[in-house]
Amino acid sequence: MFRPVYLDHNATTPLDPIVLEAMLPWLDSQHGNASSRHEYGRRARQAIDEARQKVAAAVNAHPTEVVFTSGGSEANNLFVKGAAASLKPGVIAASAIEHPCVLKPAAQLEKQGWQVRLLAVDTNGRVDAADFAEALRLKPRLLSVMLANNETGILQDVEALAAAAKSGGGWFHTDAVQALGKQAINFRSLNGVGVHAMTLSAHKASGPKGAAALVLDKRVDVQPLIAGGGHERGLRSGTENVPAIVGFGVAAELAALRVAELPVRLRGMQAKLEAGLVALGARVFAKDARRLPNTTYFAFDDIDGETLVGKLDREGFAVASGAACSSANPEPSHVLRAMGVAPEIARGAVRISLGAANTETEIEQFINALQATVGRLQGLTAIAV
Amino acid sequence: MFRPVYLDHNATTPLDPIVLEAMLPWLDSQHGNASSRHEYGRRARQAIDEARQKVAAAVNAHPTEVVFTSGGSEANNLFVKGAAASLKPGVIAASAIEHPCVLKPAAQLEKQGWQVRLLAVDTNGRVDAADFAEALRLKPRLLSVMLANNETGILQDVEALAAAAKSGGGWFHTDAVQALGKQAINFRSLNGVGVHAMTLSAHKASGPKGAAALVLDKRVDVQPLIAGGGHERGLRSGTENVPAIVGFGVAAELAALRVAELPVRLRGMQAKLEAGLVALGARVFAKDARRLPNTTYFAFDDIDGETLVGKLDREGFAVASGAACSSANPEPSHVLRAMGVAPEIARGAVRISLGAANTETEIEQFINALQATVGRLQGLTAIAV
Repeated sequence: MFRPVYLDHNATTPLDPIVLEAMLPWLDSQHGNASSRHEYGRRARQAIDEARQKVAAAVNAHPTEVVFTSGGSEANNLFVKGAAASLKPGVIAASAIEHPCVLKPAAQLEKQGWQVRLLAVDTNGRVDAADFAEALRLKPRLLSVMLANNETGILQDVEALAAAAKSGGGWFHTDAVQALGKQAINFRSLNGVGVHAMTLSAHKASGPKGAAALVLDKRVDVQPLIAGGGHERGLRSGTENVPAIVGFGVAAELAALRVAELPVRLRGMQAKLEAGLVALGARVFAKDARRLPNTTYFAFDDIDGETLVGKLDREGFAVASGAACSSANPEPSHVLRAMGVAPEIARGAVRISLGAANTETEIEQFINALQATVGRLQGLTAIAV
Repeated sequence: MFRPVYLDHNATTPLDPIVLEAMLPWLDSQHGNASSRHEYGRRARQAIDEARQKVAAAVNAHPTEVVFTSGGSEANNLFVKGAAASLKPGVIAASAIEHPCVLKPAAQLEKQGWQVRLLAVDTNGRVDAADFAEALRLKPRLLSVMLANNETGILQDVEALAAAAKSGGGWFHTDAVQALGKQAINFRSLNGVGVHAMTLSAHKASGPKGAAALVLDKRVDVQPLIAGGGHERGLRSGTENVPAIVGFGVAAELAALRVAELPVRLRGMQAKLEAGLVALGARVFAKDARRLPNTTYFAFDDIDGETLVGKLDREGFAVASGAACSSANPEPSHVLRAMGVAPEIARGAVRISLGAANTETEIEQFINALQATVGRLQGLTAIAV
């Protein structure tokens, strides 16, 4: 079967074979419900406990701080709506470049009397310090700033932001979904400076779809989104997805093991890729800012991003034109718009996100294919003009 | 490895090998995010579309009525809270024997001004007609009555209840999680008499954990629990769990294919089991009422259910002492209490729930083991007295 080169790891990652191997027994003979009080149930419960320890260890959190959910979107919604439900309505501050699964639940809170204060970002996509200071004067009860952006790969200085917000007494959340496996994450240290909650997701880090976590400081009172049997300390009811949780544990463990080596290799491929892009005349967004080692967001003037993604797909390269989760939406990226990028340039945006299995050779093949494709598209534009 | 006889299918079912086979490519080379606009993404999207068609076909619904969620608890919460969020606070009527994942979100609504009206059941666990008529006078905006109860297997006459409620204009939901695969389910026909929403879950019907559905009449305005990228027509955001959804599709298809044959075989084993139980002096709850063909709930006077489950576990039989999801809770079953069973009798309750792989021989082995175990426990009681 035709297997295009996969360059879209921020959308989702292939399952690491070690992770799949660990999951298989739980899809087969080990089928118990972890709440059942018999041999099958006890084995499932033990597997979940072990996975919880692995996830916690990978990000230096305590196992009891890990609340498993079905995905990152659920974990972000659980924080935003669940924490809000325990507070009097007030201000929720979130960066303008958060994922929709932070911004949309925040918008839903407006019906209940909450006010959403978007935090401006600079041209590199970093939260603007002056605007943040101004927002803090509103004493936000909830704050959410992501560790790393899914589209640009931009890293925020979450420690500094949380430290500045700490005296205000609001609960500070960070979406770390794109950071896991690409940089070291230390929840204890983040928590020390004032980060109270953090979202992780397995399938963004060589783990399975269907498992994620809200890592939660126990002082934060959170009402469950999904109430029922009382699973996950009453914060998330529903039969645990044992195979996915087991896979998440192994993926988190692998991410922590490889974090000294993998980012270095990714950074090398990223540099090669970006040198090639610049040589072809592309604009790389936030090129000189601190970014994830695997993410490159670029555009060619006068070439539509969707069109380029389609052409590259036919050439055998899987890349993204925007955040995968909102690809159905033809609007230019809200992230680039917040960075002050003009809509006609933002419409050209294409994202490459590398993964562990990519090679230098693939980068070279991609640049060659891109050169030919861009040449043809620019030729067409010239003729059309 | 020690493999006890599994008699706890209402807690969760083993994955059918055909289902696992269908899932494996989506855990391996077919890893795309269904929102991605490249080859991997398109294949994942197509797989989800096919699964949606299979689930819809299995219960005679339209594919666009199927909203995938991560589990039955999420689907029930989505209906209760999501429909409530689109309405002015009023009365929500739910049977007293609903699963906690209906009753708890209903209780959460009380904070927002909703009033929960529990529907009484008779000694057989069926919604009491007079009490239901009285509840309808309160003009409930939302109603929820399950098709089949997870503990007793009792079937409700949901058609008649929905038909009686129809003129009131409330939205009527039924939790069909325990019915799928054990009896034919026809959403179109239920919808015709006034059922507007129905919950299904894969892992209760030989499918995987991590996939379920709210089958939803499109006239019902539902706000998402998990907001974000706008997946599932905006009703449930988050990267789709492709392998689990694919597995759900195949499991639903198998359930529909086997529903003419499997219940007959289950009913035969159930009769044999219950004859054995009665011969040993057990009380079988709601014995003569319309029940699922696989579920038997029983108790011996003076024998604690938890203790009996523990002893049987050591003898190699996996059974349940209450609903698995609330097994951490030592309170006697709220289902039996609602049926008017005294707490000291309810504490003895043990549930057997049969599945496709069980055999008549296993039933005989179980009855023999039970006889010996009960004999020993009753001997101990006699000595203690």
